[in-house]
Amino acid sequence: MIKVGIIGATGYTGAELVRLLKHHPLVELVALTTQQYVGLPFAEVYPHLSGKVDLVGEELNIPALVNRCEAIFVSLPHGHALPVAQEVIRQGKKLIDLGADLRLKDPAVYAKWYRIDLDQSLDRAITAQLPAQAVYGLPELHRQEIRQAKTVANPGCYPTSALLGLAPLLKNKIIDPNRIIIDAKSGVSGAGRGLSLNTHYCEVNENIKAYSVANHRHTPEIEQELSLLAGGEIKVTFTPHLTPMTRGILSTIYAPLSVNLTLPEILKLYRTFYQDEHFIRIMPPHILPGTKMVAGSNYCALGIVVDERTNQVIILSAIDNLIKGASGQAVQNMNIMFDFPETMALEEAGVYP
Amino acid sequence: MIKVGIIGATGYTGAELVRLLKHHPLVELVALTTQQYVGLPFAEVYPHLSGKVDLVGEELNIPALVNRCEAIFVSLPHGHALPVAQEVIRQGKKLIDLGADLRLKDPAVYAKWYRIDLDQSLDRAITAQLPAQAVYGLPELHRQEIRQAKTVANPGCYPTSALLGLAPLLKNKIIDPNRIIIDAKSGVSGAGRGLSLNTHYCEVNENIKAYSVANHRHTPEIEQELSLLAGGEIKVTFTPHLTPMTRGILSTIYAPLSVNLTLPEILKLYRTFYQDEHFIRIMPPHILPGTKMVAGSNYCALGIVVDERTNQVIILSAIDNLIKGASGQAVQNMNIMFDFPETMALEEAGVYP
Amino acid sequence: MIKVGIIGATGYTGAELVRLLKHHPLVELVALTTQQYVGLPFAEVYPHLSGKVDLVGEELNIPALVNRCEAIFVSLPHGHALPVAQEVIRQGKKLIDLGADLRLKDPAVYAKWYRIDLDQSLDRAITAQLPAQAVYGLPELHRQEIRQAKTVANPGCYPTSALLGLAPLLKNKIIDPNRIIIDAKSGVSGAGRGLSLNTHYCEVNENIKAYSVANHRHTPEIEQELSLLAGGEIKVTFTPHLTPMTRGILSTIYAPLSVNLTLPEILKLYRTFYQDEHFIRIMPPHILPGTKMVAGSNYCALGIVVDERTNQVIILSAIDNLIKGASGQAVQNMNIMFDFPETMALEEAGVYP
Amino acid sequence: MIKVGIIGATGYTGAELVRLLKHHPLVELVALTTQQYVGLPFAEVYPHLSGKVDLVGEELNIPALVNRCEAIFVSLPHGHALPVAQEVIRQGKKLIDLGADLRLKDPAVYAKWYRIDLDQSLDRAITAQLPAQAVYGLPELHRQEIRQAKTVANPGCYPTSALLGLAPLLKNKIIDPNRIIIDAKSGVSGAGRGLSLNTHYCEVNENIKAYSVANHRHTPEIEQELSLLAGGEIKVTFTPHLTPMTRGILSTIYAPLSVNLTLPEILKLYRTFYQDEHFIRIMPPHILPGTKMVAGSNYCALGIVVDERTNQVIILSAIDNLIKGASGQAVQNMNIMFDFPETMALEEAGVYP
Repeated sequence: MIKVGIIGATGYTGAELVRLLKHHPLVELVALTTQQYVGLPFAEVYPHLSGKVDLVGEELNIPALVNRCEAIFVSLPHGHALPVAQEVIRQGKKLIDLGADLRLKDPAVYAKWYRIDLDQSLDRAITAQLPAQAVYGLPELHRQEIRQAKTVANPGCYPTSALLGLAPLLKNKIIDPNRIIIDAKSGVSGAGRGLSLNTHYCEVNENIKAYSVANHRHTPEIEQELSLLAGGEIKVTFTPHLTPMTRGILSTIYAPLSVNLTLPEILKLYRTFYQDEHFIRIMPPHILPGTKMVAGSNYCALGIVVDERTNQVIILSAIDNLIKGASGQAVQNMNIMFDFPETMALEEAGVYP
Repeated sequence: MIKVGIIGATGYTGAELVRLLKHHPLVELVALTTQQYVGLPFAEVYPHLSGKVDLVGEELNIPALVNRCEAIFVSLPHGHALPVAQEVIRQGKKLIDLGADLRLKDPAVYAKWYRIDLDQSLDRAITAQLPAQAVYGLPELHRQEIRQAKTVANPGCYPTSALLGLAPLLKNKIIDPNRIIIDAKSGVSGAGRGLSLNTHYCEVNENIKAYSVANHRHTPEIEQELSLLAGGEIKVTFTPHLTPMTRGILSTIYAPLSVNLTLPEILKLYRTFYQDEHFIRIMPPHILPGTKMVAGSNYCALGIVVDERTNQVIILSAIDNLIKGASGQAVQNMNIMFDFPETMALEEAGVYP
Repeated sequence: MIKVGIIGATGYTGAELVRLLKHHPLVELVALTTQQYVGLPFAEVYPHLSGKVDLVGEELNIPALVNRCEAIFVSLPHGHALPVAQEVIRQGKKLIDLGADLRLKDPAVYAKWYRIDLDQSLDRAITAQLPAQAVYGLPELHRQEIRQAKTVANPGCYPTSALLGLAPLLKNKIIDPNRIIIDAKSGVSGAGRGLSLNTHYCEVNENIKAYSVANHRHTPEIEQELSLLAGGEIKVTFTPHLTPMTRGILSTIYAPLSVNLTLPEILKLYRTFYQDEHFIRIMPPHILPGTKMVAGSNYCALGIVVDERTNQVIILSAIDNLIKGASGQAVQNMNIMFDFPETMALEEAGVYP
Repeated sequence: MIKVGIIGATGYTGAELVRLLKHHPLVELVALTTQQYVGLPFAEVYPHLSGKVDLVGEELNIPALVNRCEAIFVSLPHGHALPVAQEVIRQGKKLIDLGADLRLKDPAVYAKWYRIDLDQSLDRAITAQLPAQAVYGLPELHRQEIRQAKTVANPGCYPTSALLGLAPLLKNKIIDPNRIIIDAKSGVSGAGRGLSLNTHYCEVNENIKAYSVANHRHTPEIEQELSLLAGGEIKVTFTPHLTPMTRGILSTIYAPLSVNLTLPEILKLYRTFYQDEHFIRIMPPHILPGTKMVAGSNYCALGIVVDERTNQVIILSAIDNLIKGASGQAVQNMNIMFDFPETMALEEAGVYP
């Protein structure tokens, strides 16, 4: 039984962490911080958890909070995690950051894409090392390092779906790594609970559109991990789309085959690569994954098609952006870090329809 | 540990039963029958359950199936439950019927609203008694009888939301029982997985409309139970609406107050009436229930408003039509019938958003 | 050909006015004011009108704008129309206000429900008379007065649907006027383009809920007009609901019949009452109106059902909240005020599906 | 004024034809054929057209119908247009086929992708020539031929959006024509009004998924026209997706630049290529097209982005699948064939939001 705190508990990923952790038999939730709802019972901010959570939203006091907890989840916009990480390390606790601050190993890349100078009030010599020390928390690729980690950078939602789809192809070196195209479709909850015209019901409903084309911040994160897998620098074309639905990401991934393989042979590579992975479902060829198939769950469904006419392999990768793409994966990371059963509190199938 | 079979497992309520029962620690699912998908792995019909369910859809053979199970759920269109009920009673097993065949105590009322002659092939002397023997499975009102029951008639989705909203008012005799109006809004899954123009995406999306106005079959069921509560015959005006969403029912219920009570006094009556009920949430006055607040869960959220200008009490009653309105309640009934903890496998909060 | 200006053109009702008036052969749009988008081409704020509108959003200068126009539409939140109305009258122009400021004849009722003191900077002696002078712009009930009017108060969306549904019943004195219940379901665009958690896609989608129960501001407006129709003071129970769709209002209206009439007789009363009304569609008994049937159009579809068991007449009244419930009706009023053909620019059927 | 008949008027594209043609000042609609609704007033099948259309659904009698009309639209599933085309040619009338039968010039390609032997009852020598004689009705590419045509093959919805997006790139020879990827997202109305699990509201809502990956029938149609544009045989990777919305197609198109051009230079090529095209909107770089921007209209909105990191040009092409992707384009073709103003009855902007 460990004591856990969530920093930024009243956003959507925070609320999902609360829901998942309340069902976790080895976790005691002790602190939920919030900016907007200090003093309000959490169950009034999220009434679907009425009777499930007694905690009240509290203001963030980093040292005190870290002191009360063994594991800390940070679910804040990027740019706010480093002071927490520093304190967590100082006190010898463990941290899982759902934001972007610890994901990119190269500070210059981070600075360029996020247009942010890391917190000036911190000792730069120390903070510069924080991302380097953190482990990129995609368990299917980095399980051993996560097991040892003090700080884990939980992957972005788009990178999770793209990397799980591409890893077997790159590891087996069967595609041209320089011509990957990722066309991703996300539900609106990926934009968070904040208010903007882009999340206004009437602007989103009955509307699909691309955004941040050729400059989305998840691009360098995808490239960092793909480069690791391929053993060389990779650049990808990544286009996210806002889809009129609440949850889910479907990534449609295109890559030219560089070797002559049939669909059954490729399927076999996927099944081998993921043979011990509980949360990966390789769909049979006659069932293509849709987002609803994994909504409400920590599963990733993968479909593989070969277009023989154009020699492309086409991967369909579906996840729930708030679960495998965020809070569920964060709990999975926590389970690994604390040597709990990796699937604990994460086996729900999601409701259908 | 009991062995359970589901007759009609590939409709939406059947699939929800499978999902809930797979998480039930005291249940072993042994048979799933289907008309359309005989021989197909259930997890191919419902891929969100891939890896969770190994059973294959089988044809229905009533005596053999009853023989293999201790509890049988029937999730078929009305008109098909009586032969199963008869066999279940003969073999001394237990049955929960999610259809309408056992709900109405008066065979003449059933015949009138459902325009059906009960199965001619059965011994009428016996079948006529089946509905009378069955217990109406709304645990919050009939828990003691359910505990003793061999056959339970699981309530309809609309009646569940209406009855839970109205019971405290009638029991406490604070409304005029002859002027109740129930304006209910349901998600499309209430119409099942069958194909019709009424469930075609393009006909339903961006469209709200009433249907079966003044002649919906759930009317006599609501009236039967309200009459019991009030101790006298009650007629209600009931108007269902098809709402562009997948899940949920919100019933907006109007009744004139017959005694002079304030909102806090009425709230207190509700809190007292439901004080030991795990699945009923009386919302505070500043939070009105929406369907999303209970979607994916077995909870019912109730909001109470008094319109002092017109002396009406207005009840908002929200449930998930497929869970508290169908499969969840069926599992709750099973738990009571087998003396399992009543909330077992039913404590999920549902995801939000 | 008249010159027309729209004050508040960049909200949803403003944008609909622009679209409709651009197709109007006797109107020249000369000014679009905006708070948020001053200096921006209107077609960049609303790209669906690219190539259709060349105007640029401008700041509001009341006297100058009134001077440039013969007709002025005001599409602002309540509390801002009176200064415009005063200036319009001073300059002898004509005004149609889509807000609430001119609708309620009794200033005390306005002050109570809208919690607003009318603009202090104006001469109270004058402004107090403005609502009294304005005509309530529901053409089907007040066409003759609208023809003479200098200032028209365009009805609210809910009142439009409720009044059109109820007028024939009250005029013919066939219901008990003191027991009317209006259960209304609106699409999200009724809440405007402003940002709030209530219009956030993820909060609205897959969710239906009531709001402002027993205290919505359209209540006194409905009551004012129903009282006129009935020749005596009427109070109604009115419950609005937010529905997961962009457009449309369906009002389900309940009233006890006070005389013994059959459905065909009541249908005949409706057909007679609305026999010359182009925009009213009395549906045949086997087709109940849904909001999609009138979406994108200025039509109102009415369905009538009699529940003989409870002696209630149930009216289903469907409109597009932004057209017949706002901008379309405003153009209809303009047509009448300027003696143009009443249906000009308003005959579009709306797309389906 | 010409007399027009629609064969297959009660599907979605048929109903859109009816709506558009009823507003057309030079068209008299004289016949609507239907399989399902013979004898029923069209306005009861589609009540949004109540009061607009008096015609009654009639059975198809090809020679008689052709005789009554000068222009015939065929809106049937593929495989049914040839007998009509033959009769139209015999009687010297004009035909616009919204299906696939006349689109592919090479009968072997048609037979391979559509798995159909052209109607055996017809004279093969004649029918084999029908597709060859028909003009591919994309006015922006084939206006002059359409002007002379007796029979026009109205393009598919996906090809329309893809071809309009790609034409300027291929004509100007600035991309590698052998590495084009088209990732298209369509609303559900593209699947028609027929019933299937794929159009069931609960299966589609909150779900995005690919279908017919690497084998969709619009692929050869896209390739035929692209090859013409490029002056050489082209193969494309085309992936359609079913999106939870009723209307609209967004095609996201990827192609490697083969020459060194900046975004402003490419934008200029597009503006030049489409300079006289009323229905094409080249969006400025800061506004990316979404489907809602063109819903309900005959416009196509194009957005262009250059990903300099990967040297890809990315085209976003949005249309309303039922209008520019079907019925609107068919009317545009009719206007050209009969020398009417090309935009007649097609200038509506569509409602927003």
